Amino acid sequence: MDISAVNAFSYEDFVNTFGNVVEKCPLITAAVWSRRPFGSLNALEAAISDFIDELPESGKEGILRCHPDLAGRDLLRGTLTRESHQEQAGAGMDTLASAEAERMARLNEEYKKRFGFPFVICARMNDKANILRQLTERCQNERAEERERGIEEVKKICRLRLQSLVLTDAANKL
Amino acid sequence: MDISAVNAFSYEDFVNTFGNVVEKCPLITAAVWSRRPFGSLNALEAAISDFIDELPESGKEGILRCHPDLAGRDLLRGTLTRESHQEQAGAGMDTLASAEAERMARLNEEYKKRFGFPFVICARMNDKANILRQLTERCQNERAEERERGIEEVKKICRLRLQSLVLTDAANKL
Repeated sequence: MDISAVNAFSYEDFVNTFGNVVEKCPLITAAVWSRRPFGSLNALEAAISDFIDELPESGKEGILRCHPDLAGRDLLRGTLTRESHQEQAGAGMDTLASAEAERMARLNEEYKKRFGFPFVICARMNDKANILRQLTERCQNERAEERERGIEEVKKICRLRLQSLVLTDAANKL
Repeated sequence: MDISAVNAFSYEDFVNTFGNVVEKCPLITAAVWSRRPFGSLNALEAAISDFIDELPESGKEGILRCHPDLAGRDLLRGTLTRESHQEQAGAGMDTLASAEAERMARLNEEYKKRFGFPFVICARMNDKANILRQLTERCQNERAEERERGIEEVKKICRLRLQSLVLTDAANKL
């Protein structure tokens, strides 16, 4: 997919294609359509990042709250979005040993109770051991720090989802 | 459902319950959880309204772009959200005569081409004739005027969806 093809999308095609680059937040994708044309994939990514940065702190927390737990209920029930499922499975979240699964569940609950939003990490950039280590460590942080850190992870997830969608044909230069 | 029960919701229960009071924008619901406790249903509604008002214009357009066309493809395909389907069916959008359906489709396209977002109206407050009349008239407006008007309609839809969810037991005082 070439960036000129992206720029030619109607808002409907744009949202249908990119609506979940920020998990369950098609509002963000739909908003940045107003900023087209984009000079590159990086420019589209930057527009999303800028939109997120301009939200009030409650809005950033809202984005985090639209994310599922890692190895949580949605994974068990098969109700993850397609993207989340691929990412969680890729990091081994669907094949945890029972002791690991229990530890993950306990830490997720501790994190959510402390911060009022879920632990968000870019699963495609981390393996199982790393995710458990970071979840343990990040439970000790302050709320504002974790809000910022979670949003950084949202942006990494967004970048990889965008790349997966746009760079499916590597011959296209973006 | 009593407002004290709403205030006791975890963010997950809150988003599961109220996540679609603004169509396909759980981000907004998830964000206003940060403002709890709410003194009343009106206070919750006001928090949502305030969050929307504080978004940049692109964000308001993003909200509108998350809405389906009236009597459009999603209705035909059965891919409307439960709430939208009830509202559109209630206004007779699923039983249009073919001439009406064609006129609606043509006007929807004209509106979207002119403004870059769909025509949004609170279907539960309007009948079929009124919807067609307003769609025809509003196609003549300016973009900024329609953005504001569409958001007013989003807030009406939100109020009625909230009331449906919270006031299911009329004995509860909110």
